Amino acid sequence: MPYTNRQWKLTRRPSGMVSRDDFDLATVTIPDLADGQAVARVRYLSIDPTMRIWMADIPQYMPPVALGEVMRSFGIAEVLESRNPNFKKGDKLLGFTGLQEYIVVDGQEKRPFQKVPSIPFVSDSAFLGVLGLNGLTAYFGMMDIAKPQKGETLVVSAAAGATGSIVGQIGKIHGCRVVGIAGGEEKCRWLLDDLGFDAAVNYKQPDWKEKLAAATPKGVDIDFENVGGEIMNAVLDRMNLFGRVVVCGLISGYNRQDPGLASFATILIKRLRVQGFILLDYAPRFMEAATELGKWKMFGKLKDRETVVEGFEKALDAINMLFTGANIGKTIVKL
Amino acid sequence: MPYTNRQWKLTRRPSGMVSRDDFDLATVTIPDLADGQAVARVRYLSIDPTMRIWMADIPQYMPPVALGEVMRSFGIAEVLESRNPNFKKGDKLLGFTGLQEYIVVDGQEKRPFQKVPSIPFVSDSAFLGVLGLNGLTAYFGMMDIAKPQKGETLVVSAAAGATGSIVGQIGKIHGCRVVGIAGGEEKCRWLLDDLGFDAAVNYKQPDWKEKLAAATPKGVDIDFENVGGEIMNAVLDRMNLFGRVVVCGLISGYNRQDPGLASFATILIKRLRVQGFILLDYAPRFMEAATELGKWKMFGKLKDRETVVEGFEKALDAINMLFTGANIGKTIVKL
Repeated sequence: MPYTNRQWKLTRRPSGMVSRDDFDLATVTIPDLADGQAVARVRYLSIDPTMRIWMADIPQYMPPVALGEVMRSFGIAEVLESRNPNFKKGDKLLGFTGLQEYIVVDGQEKRPFQKVPSIPFVSDSAFLGVLGLNGLTAYFGMMDIAKPQKGETLVVSAAAGATGSIVGQIGKIHGCRVVGIAGGEEKCRWLLDDLGFDAAVNYKQPDWKEKLAAATPKGVDIDFENVGGEIMNAVLDRMNLFGRVVVCGLISGYNRQDPGLASFATILIKRLRVQGFILLDYAPRFMEAATELGKWKMFGKLKDRETVVEGFEKALDAINMLFTGANIGKTIVKL
Repeated sequence: MPYTNRQWKLTRRPSGMVSRDDFDLATVTIPDLADGQAVARVRYLSIDPTMRIWMADIPQYMPPVALGEVMRSFGIAEVLESRNPNFKKGDKLLGFTGLQEYIVVDGQEKRPFQKVPSIPFVSDSAFLGVLGLNGLTAYFGMMDIAKPQKGETLVVSAAAGATGSIVGQIGKIHGCRVVGIAGGEEKCRWLLDDLGFDAAVNYKQPDWKEKLAAATPKGVDIDFENVGGEIMNAVLDRMNLFGRVVVCGLISGYNRQDPGLASFATILIKRLRVQGFILLDYAPRFMEAATELGKWKMFGKLKDRETVVEGFEKALDAINMLFTGANIGKTIVKL
């Protein structure tokens, strides 16, 4: 059966926010399957800040997406037809689907797809978020870099985002005082009422820096930094001696010029450890992390939330939501 | 016998370079010794970049020097007279003498003085530099923070300074390719010809960044950062994945506004570890470090050099030499 596949292809490198003019919405027909191939329908696209980095022609941890290529993304696709015994109709494949409606796989992919396990009460899309890249990122950033100790104060920025919300909950599991920084009252309410954060600071209020100070009476031991720029510098002002700054994301800088770090002397005087990490470095330990995250989720210690955008054609808008702050929790596009 | 003691007292917080007008040259008479006291003549004053920090009313790792107080410094003083059995005439005392000609001690000092051991072929002043604070700083910064591996490339800034010159030699001891950044041809020649550095880059030449690139063909694994600002940012551009930046000093920022860090995204993308440290944190392990440094020195693996300024009245000029780059190796004032 022929399939008509729509694809978002990157045709120009965005400056600032992502624009429709940076992409071509191409339509291709998928030819009949060869022996060893399977075709799968993309069900969910994972919308992540790192996609904005992949669009830019700058040094990065993976090659940037080339102009003319289908935009890279994670996603989950369901096998429709297969001429490969390793892929069965109904299998759900997790991996680099790209922003398109269908994928053809043959098991020889450089970055192989994983099968999404069927677990009662766990949605497939959880494997894109709390049990997927965001959960893993939060896990390694906290357990390997931050190393939280009971009684310490953790501040996490973009706290209502897919990664930040899990970071804060891992902090609570380890006995930290957890303060989230987020944009908007609804996000702050979610952090406090549903996720059990000790305090939430809405950076859209003019006095947010005073509120951050009030929320961190004993200073800050861990800054889990997802944002960078002005927010990061405000948290650095509150750091205690021997504090750790986990440089996980710098969303404030993805669309603009790199904001830099205002006070480098702070690192010296406070003996801070500022450490960047990229999830892919931890690939050999993904199973360990997924097991822990799964346990925490099963015992109700990890809650998650999704912002679901319906329709393939909305994928670019969904990306921009990450930078305007219109999302809460994990942002996915449902096809 | 009464002693007339001259003292450099801080009377105004300097802006930029240290000015004569920021200090009062006071003269006081030391009264007769009470029971338990000893008087010692200061022989050497240690001139260190950190003194510039102590002059500033900013958050720091020790209280700043108060206005009206004798300027804080390390030094070595020789006991002249004693009414305390723990101090004998001729004993050489190492510690916080301050910028003055005489000290009176009673053994109750909050930061006690150490006695300088008499070791053949080792000058007393070595205990202010290669076997003192600079050697210890280089040791812990390298062994605890940088953790050099054979074959890695180390870049050290202010490489011809008291600390930087030892850092580079410790790098050589551990099998690193060592590249020094220094200001001036004489300094670079010393690094290459006497200390065995693999390359030396004179940052006063207009093409120094190209030379740094040529000197680090495999990139940079360790940046031992003594300077900050433009020099640091140029080294950061050359860092390899999983590089370490030892934030030991930021001399470029001591007299000016903090230059910050131009690209914070670099930390993320290259998974750098940027870590500040202050020698005093390692006090319990000073003996371990001094033993290692002493062994290396004895076996000819550590060479040192001094810039000696004669005369107490030149102490302020000696401080400014650190920031104009007029010194090589350890800067001391000999009284």
